[in-house]
Amino acid sequence: MKEALPFMHAAIEQARKGATPFGCVIVKNDTIVAGAYSTVHQEHDVTAHAEINAIRKLHSMKKRSDFSGYTLYTTTEPCPMCTSACLYAGITTIVYGASITQFKRYAPVIDIASHEIVAKSNHKVLIIPGMLAPECLDLFEEYQA
Amino acid sequence: MKEALPFMHAAIEQARKGATPFGCVIVKNDTIVAGAYSTVHQEHDVTAHAEINAIRKLHSMKKRSDFSGYTLYTTTEPCPMCTSACLYAGITTIVYGASITQFKRYAPVIDIASHEIVAKSNHKVLIIPGMLAPECLDLFEEYQA
Repeated sequence: MKEALPFMHAAIEQARKGATPFGCVIVKNDTIVAGAYSTVHQEHDVTAHAEINAIRKLHSMKKRSDFSGYTLYTTTEPCPMCTSACLYAGITTIVYGASITQFKRYAPVIDIASHEIVAKSNHKVLIIPGMLAPECLDLFEEYQA
Repeated sequence: MKEALPFMHAAIEQARKGATPFGCVIVKNDTIVAGAYSTVHQEHDVTAHAEINAIRKLHSMKKRSDFSGYTLYTTTEPCPMCTSACLYAGITTIVYGASITQFKRYAPVIDIASHEIVAKSNHKVLIIPGMLAPECLDLFEEYQA
């Protein structure tokens, strides 16, 4: 694997584009294949979290459902909705910045860690927490400023 | 509330339209305002569960995000992805047919009950399990036949 930090920086750039500071990119073979940010407010669609948008984008581009071997980099730990979507898509690795425990003082959350969702499924997903967590948390400070 | 069974029958009719037997309707003031079935296979989109499709349809029609006072009738207990979407949408009541425990012998599941997801959120959602459960389970038998 190439240096991973640029991928999380790319996720942070995605987050800055949104009305709320959540961004992600999906990576395959050291190349970003999809990036997205939350469009919940713009689209009046509560399902339009960054991760769901990125997975949908990937489905739309590739016309298939299985993305084993793909890694998702996301600025915040995926919620149960998004973790479930990653599982269904067969995403192999999830790398996140700020944890749910860290960002729940900025926004209401469903307080279940992504690894708890994964543990109740038949899939194996490697979860790598805390990458650039301070920078990802700063997004919320910028958002509130 | 009028008789509720016709709403679950309508969800079952939705399920019969799909490539996989999952259907739901969303009801407000005793009227069905949206119905949907799983289009995961047709659309190559793992997020296109019946409940997600119905919620997105509602968002698209109403151009808003809060659906408190709405009831979702679904043939199977919503998975963590769909339960989370219901929470984000402010759905007040979830009525389901077959439980995850009952239908997991037909399909791989994330083995977390919907009430466990709700319990970890700030929302109050009334969950009514088991409505027409045998008929909802029969959908899987029909599907496999």
